Amino acid sequence: MEGVALTMSTTPISTITPISHASSLTDIPANTNPSYMTVALAPGDGIGPEIMHAVLFILDKAGVSKYMSFQPVEAGASVFAKGETRGVTDAALTAIESCGLLLKGPMETPKGSGGKSINVTLRKLFNAYANLRTFRTLPGVNTVYSKAGINIDMTVVRENIEDTYGGVEHRLSNDMIQCKRLISAPGSDQLCRYAFKTARALGINKVYCGHKANIMKMTDGLFLERFRAAARDFPEIEAGDVIVDALCMNLVMKPQQYKMLVLPNLQGDIVSDLCAGLVGGLGFAPSANIGNEISIFEAVHGTAPDIAGKGIANPTSLLLSSLMLLRHVGLKQQAAHIENALLVTLESGIHTGDFGDTSKPSVGTMDFAKAIADRLGQTPKTVPAVVVSTEQQDGDMCYTRPARPSGPRMIRTFKNIVTSVVGCDVYLDTPHSPVALAEEMKRACQDTPFKLSLISNRGTQVWPTGSVYTECVDYYRVRFELKDGISAGTIGQSRTIALLDRIAEGFTVCSYELLRNFDGIRGFSLAQGQ
Amino acid sequence: MEGVALTMSTTPISTITPISHASSLTDIPANTNPSYMTVALAPGDGIGPEIMHAVLFILDKAGVSKYMSFQPVEAGASVFAKGETRGVTDAALTAIESCGLLLKGPMETPKGSGGKSINVTLRKLFNAYANLRTFRTLPGVNTVYSKAGINIDMTVVRENIEDTYGGVEHRLSNDMIQCKRLISAPGSDQLCRYAFKTARALGINKVYCGHKANIMKMTDGLFLERFRAAARDFPEIEAGDVIVDALCMNLVMKPQQYKMLVLPNLQGDIVSDLCAGLVGGLGFAPSANIGNEISIFEAVHGTAPDIAGKGIANPTSLLLSSLMLLRHVGLKQQAAHIENALLVTLESGIHTGDFGDTSKPSVGTMDFAKAIADRLGQTPKTVPAVVVSTEQQDGDMCYTRPARPSGPRMIRTFKNIVTSVVGCDVYLDTPHSPVALAEEMKRACQDTPFKLSLISNRGTQVWPTGSVYTECVDYYRVRFELKDGISAGTIGQSRTIALLDRIAEGFTVCSYELLRNFDGIRGFSLAQGQ
Repeated sequence: MEGVALTMSTTPISTITPISHASSLTDIPANTNPSYMTVALAPGDGIGPEIMHAVLFILDKAGVSKYMSFQPVEAGASVFAKGETRGVTDAALTAIESCGLLLKGPMETPKGSGGKSINVTLRKLFNAYANLRTFRTLPGVNTVYSKAGINIDMTVVRENIEDTYGGVEHRLSNDMIQCKRLISAPGSDQLCRYAFKTARALGINKVYCGHKANIMKMTDGLFLERFRAAARDFPEIEAGDVIVDALCMNLVMKPQQYKMLVLPNLQGDIVSDLCAGLVGGLGFAPSANIGNEISIFEAVHGTAPDIAGKGIANPTSLLLSSLMLLRHVGLKQQAAHIENALLVTLESGIHTGDFGDTSKPSVGTMDFAKAIADRLGQTPKTVPAVVVSTEQQDGDMCYTRPARPSGPRMIRTFKNIVTSVVGCDVYLDTPHSPVALAEEMKRACQDTPFKLSLISNRGTQVWPTGSVYTECVDYYRVRFELKDGISAGTIGQSRTIALLDRIAEGFTVCSYELLRNFDGIRGFSLAQGQ
Repeated sequence: MEGVALTMSTTPISTITPISHASSLTDIPANTNPSYMTVALAPGDGIGPEIMHAVLFILDKAGVSKYMSFQPVEAGASVFAKGETRGVTDAALTAIESCGLLLKGPMETPKGSGGKSINVTLRKLFNAYANLRTFRTLPGVNTVYSKAGINIDMTVVRENIEDTYGGVEHRLSNDMIQCKRLISAPGSDQLCRYAFKTARALGINKVYCGHKANIMKMTDGLFLERFRAAARDFPEIEAGDVIVDALCMNLVMKPQQYKMLVLPNLQGDIVSDLCAGLVGGLGFAPSANIGNEISIFEAVHGTAPDIAGKGIANPTSLLLSSLMLLRHVGLKQQAAHIENALLVTLESGIHTGDFGDTSKPSVGTMDFAKAIADRLGQTPKTVPAVVVSTEQQDGDMCYTRPARPSGPRMIRTFKNIVTSVVGCDVYLDTPHSPVALAEEMKRACQDTPFKLSLISNRGTQVWPTGSVYTECVDYYRVRFELKDGISAGTIGQSRTIALLDRIAEGFTVCSYELLRNFDGIRGFSLAQGQ
């Protein structure tokens, strides 16, 4: 990081503390002074160091060094090369923890070496549950939408922990693999509340929830319900919802109709990259991963090894990510100041080689940065300037790193709910026909409190009725429910496990779920056709 | 369907046969003559009947009645009104079965009445496993892409049965709901093979698989592997793959780079609606649901009740869907003939009220249809005409309804695989801390062949190591694996169920999975951090 103008902390973080329950970080000096902070800095691989250099140069010229210094940490290719499969050293993790803030350039995940994505590792490790991304039409960045005169100014809040991203996958038979899609009430709560709080801070008056609750009725139904619950605490903000496939069509046809979107993980991943495309690609789209204690601000584009070291890379995405950092800690005016200078620069036609008017010569990374620094204090003419309202100025520059938790915490939404066992779903690895399987299952539950209520295959009922056209794979779900006359709650799970045991004498039971009512409401979906 | 010019079958389908295992349809006369066929016809609700009328008028003028007649069937609002929650009568289902082909207008799903989507019902019932959608830039249909001079000609093949669309959902604790995402090898096989066969028929030389195998490594990894396996049988067609989020960004920035995409269900749902947006919306995007026996051709736009009966609706989507039907049965030249007339009509600026040059007056539905009929035999000048190559003409008009299966069939990919039990995952509904839970679990497995190997929460490892920042919900996964010295395959599942039984003495076991190796390869993912 030679030549970085901002003050670097020179005292190394002394104690290397592994991230585990047994450890504790006490008396870390950084970021307990609300008017001056240290930010961990991981320049990244490929073009990372040169665009980071350009960004720090601009921040310094804008006077940000009065409020923050940067502490370089070791992460990325050099760490992977030492055989550390996380791609980040213990010392780096400790420094990030002590700061509570990380500004991060693009990093490679080496293929085939067992190395894991640093982005995913850091998000999980620090429980950065919300991915915040903003998408704004920039002057001089030509896209099909800018050519059509469509102005985009949109924020996407994506859930970052749950959904299928838990990576809980099992091969359940020769031919069937399952991935668990998990949606929790408290996880949805904190994400949606964060979205509304952010909308409030940004002066956004309508937030849409994107979801697929018409198909995933229970999981996305829960996400949507918690979105609506959160909305009730923000009465000044309108709350709408839209099915994700329709949303993507609308985004392509009329993106200007949305100001803020909040979505579950996979759908949010897809939608946020779609939105990046609307404004010119990942090179113009910043990103932040927000946690309760630690937040990560990063460029999500690649490391562009083909142009690394040439001094021609475009620092815009990383610069915009650093402005998210400034806004996160209350430096809203400084962020607006820099963003306006960027807009003026782009408006004047100055561009790096990857975008802009190709009939005009492009400039290098540092000349682009200097052009922005030279324009600090100016406001754009062709697009609206970024203005910080008096109201938004409240709470200026007041960041204190939250205390380190002593261990994993429980987050909860629903308590004091009465559950009652009503049956079980048993999943079998078998090539039986539905009818033959039904005979065996009826026998298995004969002397139990349960009756066979349905058999389904890939979600479609195949017994007691079904379609002759259904194609079955070697993985069945068999549902047992209480016999008529036996009330919910009068028997316990030991009876379902006894049934499971009996079935396992003749079949491979690859999976099982307890069927319960929660406060009298059925806690499971019906099969298609049931 | 008054005034429909095409021949209607006057003999009603005599036997109403419920779709069930016990039933059989024998000697159904329809569609065993390869040169003349009957197509079941469901005009739909709202604008459905009037756009269907227009489409049948055009088909008739193009001489299609030499090859096919239409058999009206009862489905939609009138059937829901009678209290039939499927929205389709048994007689209609029998007629569709006997034809093997259904042309369908838009239909409503009444809200809150317990009624189910007819589209979903029919797809499941008839195992229409592939959703085929084509997206083509049409002259006179202004979009941001047409204005930018970007020509789109793309086909999307979406899996229609699996993924989270099986709707298998369970509430596993107060705060956690799960949806099973299921991907099977034979389901992926038949979908991918259908995509390549379609690419071959359409003369498309490159097919991309869209997926999220970087996150859902086992499920989408399987889908991608089966895509590659299918590709080997089509050596003249190039096979590529792209991560779905990057795909959506690329589609927005440079859609012309793709000719055909094949995707799992949810991702395909999102991507295909995105693509509809690129060409002007659902009003210009046809759809077909293809099964081995029965295929459904439909407009996927809404019923537009606000303009129903006014004779102003746009029949383009349904017309294009009917052309997919013609191509499906080998009437490629007739389809090209009609499509060229549509292109000439649009090129001349004729338009219904929902699109086109608003400075020119719009025409009604039937005048639009007549304008197309008047232009049969012409070819467009501003866009490439649709040409049927000599090669593609092979196999002209040769549709025979496949035999009705006698019952559900097994589809299989992997056989003769040796599996061995190596442990189990047990999922608990508990508010314990990870450390306290670990103590209990270690005790539970003390005298068993298993050791506690990890505890995770929402996919993130919390024991034996973990991050203090992890936020836990009331739903844990506890993994037990064979103790050192015990070989895979030497113990059976009865031991894992015995362990389950012991755990259930003190905890609510909401879910369970058997851990196995398949031909020595681990059949389950590791936890984040494991």
